[in-house]
Amino acid sequence: MNHFTITKPSSSLWRVSFDNPPVNVFSSQTIIELRTLVDAAETDPDLTVILFESANPDYFSAHWDLTDDTSSLASEPPPVTGQQAFVDVLIRLSKLPVISISAIRGRARGAGSEFLLATDIRFASRERALIGQFEMTTGVAPGGGAVSRLPRLVGRGRALEILAGADDFDGDLAERYGYVNRSIPDAEFDEFINSFTHRVAGTDRGAVAEMKGWVNEMTLPDDQEFRPQSDAFFARLTGPEVSGWITRAFEQGLQQPGDLEERLGTRGFEV
Amino acid sequence: MNHFTITKPSSSLWRVSFDNPPVNVFSSQTIIELRTLVDAAETDPDLTVILFESANPDYFSAHWDLTDDTSSLASEPPPVTGQQAFVDVLIRLSKLPVISISAIRGRARGAGSEFLLATDIRFASRERALIGQFEMTTGVAPGGGAVSRLPRLVGRGRALEILAGADDFDGDLAERYGYVNRSIPDAEFDEFINSFTHRVAGTDRGAVAEMKGWVNEMTLPDDQEFRPQSDAFFARLTGPEVSGWITRAFEQGLQQPGDLEERLGTRGFEV
Amino acid sequence: MNHFTITKPSSSLWRVSFDNPPVNVFSSQTIIELRTLVDAAETDPDLTVILFESANPDYFSAHWDLTDDTSSLASEPPPVTGQQAFVDVLIRLSKLPVISISAIRGRARGAGSEFLLATDIRFASRERALIGQFEMTTGVAPGGGAVSRLPRLVGRGRALEILAGADDFDGDLAERYGYVNRSIPDAEFDEFINSFTHRVAGTDRGAVAEMKGWVNEMTLPDDQEFRPQSDAFFARLTGPEVSGWITRAFEQGLQQPGDLEERLGTRGFEV
Repeated sequence: MNHFTITKPSSSLWRVSFDNPPVNVFSSQTIIELRTLVDAAETDPDLTVILFESANPDYFSAHWDLTDDTSSLASEPPPVTGQQAFVDVLIRLSKLPVISISAIRGRARGAGSEFLLATDIRFASRERALIGQFEMTTGVAPGGGAVSRLPRLVGRGRALEILAGADDFDGDLAERYGYVNRSIPDAEFDEFINSFTHRVAGTDRGAVAEMKGWVNEMTLPDDQEFRPQSDAFFARLTGPEVSGWITRAFEQGLQQPGDLEERLGTRGFEV
Repeated sequence: MNHFTITKPSSSLWRVSFDNPPVNVFSSQTIIELRTLVDAAETDPDLTVILFESANPDYFSAHWDLTDDTSSLASEPPPVTGQQAFVDVLIRLSKLPVISISAIRGRARGAGSEFLLATDIRFASRERALIGQFEMTTGVAPGGGAVSRLPRLVGRGRALEILAGADDFDGDLAERYGYVNRSIPDAEFDEFINSFTHRVAGTDRGAVAEMKGWVNEMTLPDDQEFRPQSDAFFARLTGPEVSGWITRAFEQGLQQPGDLEERLGTRGFEV
Repeated sequence: MNHFTITKPSSSLWRVSFDNPPVNVFSSQTIIELRTLVDAAETDPDLTVILFESANPDYFSAHWDLTDDTSSLASEPPPVTGQQAFVDVLIRLSKLPVISISAIRGRARGAGSEFLLATDIRFASRERALIGQFEMTTGVAPGGGAVSRLPRLVGRGRALEILAGADDFDGDLAERYGYVNRSIPDAEFDEFINSFTHRVAGTDRGAVAEMKGWVNEMTLPDDQEFRPQSDAFFARLTGPEVSGWITRAFEQGLQQPGDLEERLGTRGFEV
């Protein structure tokens, strides 16, 4: 794996660190690696908890890699769920019989936010987390699941604000909206995450799987619901409005450290 | 239009100011004007955002006009959805292919609260907003949609408290409950509202409409769900308990500026 | 009744105090008494509000009585809903045509938390309430309804954290999660509870019943959803992991005042 580093403090706990410099964009390669990880997690007899964190304290995951041509996916097996490849692997992640946790430091926007919405539990660093669905800034609605997952998590009103407003949410505001479970002072963040993951890793794997399965039935969207959203996303992505935004944004520093990526929630509309 | 004044800062943004002195009650005339507005919004090719605000800083909308005889509605076309006229226009408002925002300063109770629950996004002035469903004070449950919209927005426990308790909620408490998206200090309120509405007005109308359509499917009640609620409301309205309350309340200053309307959440039970 | 003391400040309000020393465990006897109470509440023509509180300021209800052998239930009529006896009486409680309120002082864990989740409205003492589903500590998922009620109340992410993490939540954190309606400073708690219950007790019983019936349809799980959860709970309860935990925990002070019960959210994993 190039993007994910997995360490296993115990047989029941995997810590997965995401590292795709310089700003942790999510690409076809990331999907391929995440598939391998999900394949392994589905059948591991001891695993109870997967913790996702970032090697880069400024970027949990900037967004989808807008230089990606998805051709590397062509040689891969077709998505198990029949959905678009990114949607597919997030659906499978959300249905794993283990608890997945996102420890959010730095920015998580677009596909990065959709990734963390597909994990079970989200903890945010109060001072360092900055999350949002910036897609409408560019002229397209999110296509990787945020449209289905946000309303179920934060209710209609706040979901429409997050999606249509396309702004950044810091840790505390994200907690007030229910976008994350909890905002934790950064100085206490590592200890909190360690303590919580070890706690859950110490529980009975079978009981966790059973319980999560029941919760899945009540809370997960039907797989089919995502298709119109991913179709529309890819249709608009190549249209003049979105492709124009992308061209201008790359000229202004997209996918590089600097002001545009740092303040994308604000700067995106000025591109 | 007598109750609504529409200004159009750009082709994609309408600012709608509600003004029905002295306390902005909602009446058959308001329904007729809101219908006209919704008719126009449904077909406008450029509109992306409608902002609703009040010309009266103390009253966003006091409640339904209890002197209204609804006879003016008799000469109007029948409701499009087949539901009661107030419910009908709120259903249509909630399904508009544009984002509707309530900027809440002052009191919004009863039908005023049901109106803002039918808009997509609710921002409240921290110091000046006061919202609630006071109906149970008078002996009847809300009939204009609050019973269906609140549980989906704030969950069963808080919805039952808001409905059965019939109390006022200030901006901060309304935010903690999820009754509004966010409570904003009044000194920053105008700038916040301007900034957010212009932001969304700058996005792609087609992408917004598509996204909101998907969210509607997941979050809006079925139209038929409202009928028993509006039927029961009108049946009880003319019964001895509610009509007795109304008579006494008018003697004590209902629908006039003053203590009863200002503190209706508290004073309502003392009528 | 031995566990519940009912006082009736008026014909529309019952105050029910739970007292089963030393830590208010919930047992078959409690179920039998709660059935009697629910039977009476279902047919009382004047009742509008039931307030549940604890005679013990440190324990609202510690958890299920792990010395209980359920044999006393054998001579009772079968559960009305066809569900397991504890689940059955909580389903019936949640569907009563009156508003039920939990005034939470002290600890409410496991079955104690499931009881308060089955009431309509939950108010917590900021300083004294401590609630949680500690069951996963012992190796089993909650079997009395928490798995179905929590996701609908607090959303998928926070429900999975509460269930899998099995930790204690104080009043303020419980409010931020939506686990309770509101956290109230203990010094103001009694007055707040008195004021709210009398308020609702003064409303029209028929209108309350009608309104709650509509909310029930939108928010309550189907009765059948609980069966796999209670079946799995009782299957695991007698297995080696859970029964081992129970044996060790009794040796360390379970069901007695002291450190284990006081800090069960933390201490449970160390048993």
